[in-house]
Amino acid sequence: MKFYPGIFLLIQALVFDVFGTVVDWRTSLIRQLEQFGRENGLNADWPNLVDDWRGQYQPMMNEVRTGKRPWANLDELHRESLEQLLPRYGLGSLTHSQKQGLVLGWHFLDPWPDSVPGLTRLKKKFIIGTLSNGGLRLLTNMAKYGGLPWDAIFSSDMFHHYKPDPEAYRGTAVLLDCPAQDVMLVAAHNYDLEAARKCGFKTAFVARPSEYGPRQSRDFTAESDWDYVARDFEELAAQLGA
Amino acid sequence: MKFYPGIFLLIQALVFDVFGTVVDWRTSLIRQLEQFGRENGLNADWPNLVDDWRGQYQPMMNEVRTGKRPWANLDELHRESLEQLLPRYGLGSLTHSQKQGLVLGWHFLDPWPDSVPGLTRLKKKFIIGTLSNGGLRLLTNMAKYGGLPWDAIFSSDMFHHYKPDPEAYRGTAVLLDCPAQDVMLVAAHNYDLEAARKCGFKTAFVARPSEYGPRQSRDFTAESDWDYVARDFEELAAQLGA
Repeated sequence: MKFYPGIFLLIQALVFDVFGTVVDWRTSLIRQLEQFGRENGLNADWPNLVDDWRGQYQPMMNEVRTGKRPWANLDELHRESLEQLLPRYGLGSLTHSQKQGLVLGWHFLDPWPDSVPGLTRLKKKFIIGTLSNGGLRLLTNMAKYGGLPWDAIFSSDMFHHYKPDPEAYRGTAVLLDCPAQDVMLVAAHNYDLEAARKCGFKTAFVARPSEYGPRQSRDFTAESDWDYVARDFEELAAQLGA
Repeated sequence: MKFYPGIFLLIQALVFDVFGTVVDWRTSLIRQLEQFGRENGLNADWPNLVDDWRGQYQPMMNEVRTGKRPWANLDELHRESLEQLLPRYGLGSLTHSQKQGLVLGWHFLDPWPDSVPGLTRLKKKFIIGTLSNGGLRLLTNMAKYGGLPWDAIFSSDMFHHYKPDPEAYRGTAVLLDCPAQDVMLVAAHNYDLEAARKCGFKTAFVARPSEYGPRQSRDFTAESDWDYVARDFEELAAQLGA
């Protein structure tokens, strides 16, 4: 971490990437799917299904980001990518409501152990919010489920843009009614921080090296000179004097 | 109150008008202005200034609502109406930063005594959010100041529409990703509930008979058969089984 004396005094708001940065989507979804399998007498390679499902995340969003298809929220993209994957896992005959239930699982993901205590500290000093590709309802359900104490939700469906489109970052700063440099993105993904920095945001990297399980191939370390680099949210709070 | 057995089970989210319904803007602003006067050796009829300031609220918003002027957020409207009023109160020589400070006063208004305890109960059973003509930053500052435990903020600057424009209500239901009839507006103003009902929302009236002080001329009682009518937020929570 580079320490600029007093830099934190300029920060008015911290906004957080959510999937991977705040919540452990992989462990949560594998557990949900295993339970779904037990309750319905179904067997499948659940961890690989989850990893393949998440693997469709960027390609699906890119269809929206490039204008190949009109706006669709993350629940819709999750449902479509699930539909595509299920036959390969011998699950092609799930009912509509079973599939809806699995898609809804993305609304109820467990926070990393440091997320709630770290956010609680940071909230005392800064406005804290999401800045996520999830939708507002998903992020609201997740906050109630996990006890995430957000002051404000910034979501892809508020802007009809997925990160790393600049509209998502800029739109957030506009609603916060402050200069972009007074907002800091906290994320476990270097590409997200890069896009935020291009929009003038301050940046903080928190590594989540187990986010993707055995398939994780990147984001083990900070790949640029981000304003802050911390092991977890508690350390970030300490660095920011919160 | 008309009680439809089980009606509350259909409600997923409660959204609240804020100025007057959740916070006592008049008492808060008079106190702020009196303190401002003491600190700056200025004397004026502060209660009347506050009442005149609020009196400009609907006319200013109507200029935006009718398209007479482009989008401007509530802080801008508050600043312009203050500028117009100050000379009449012998305060035409205030500095820019003094005026900005007074406008910012609208971000820091005290909740009615039942607001926080009532919202805290309601939050356990429903998604609770603002649906206000304030901006997101104003509403976020106010929530942090007053301890208002919102799950989500819905603000005029998210939609570029002021209530009672239908876009504000409809946009909220879209982001909540649920049918309009699963959302209930809670408000102290009959016109707001009327507009919400036209958009399909459920409605709850909570009278705030001292909101406007001696000038109050309306909204002492429910003027239609709203779904719920309660004395305060605690009674509303009880009616809703929360």
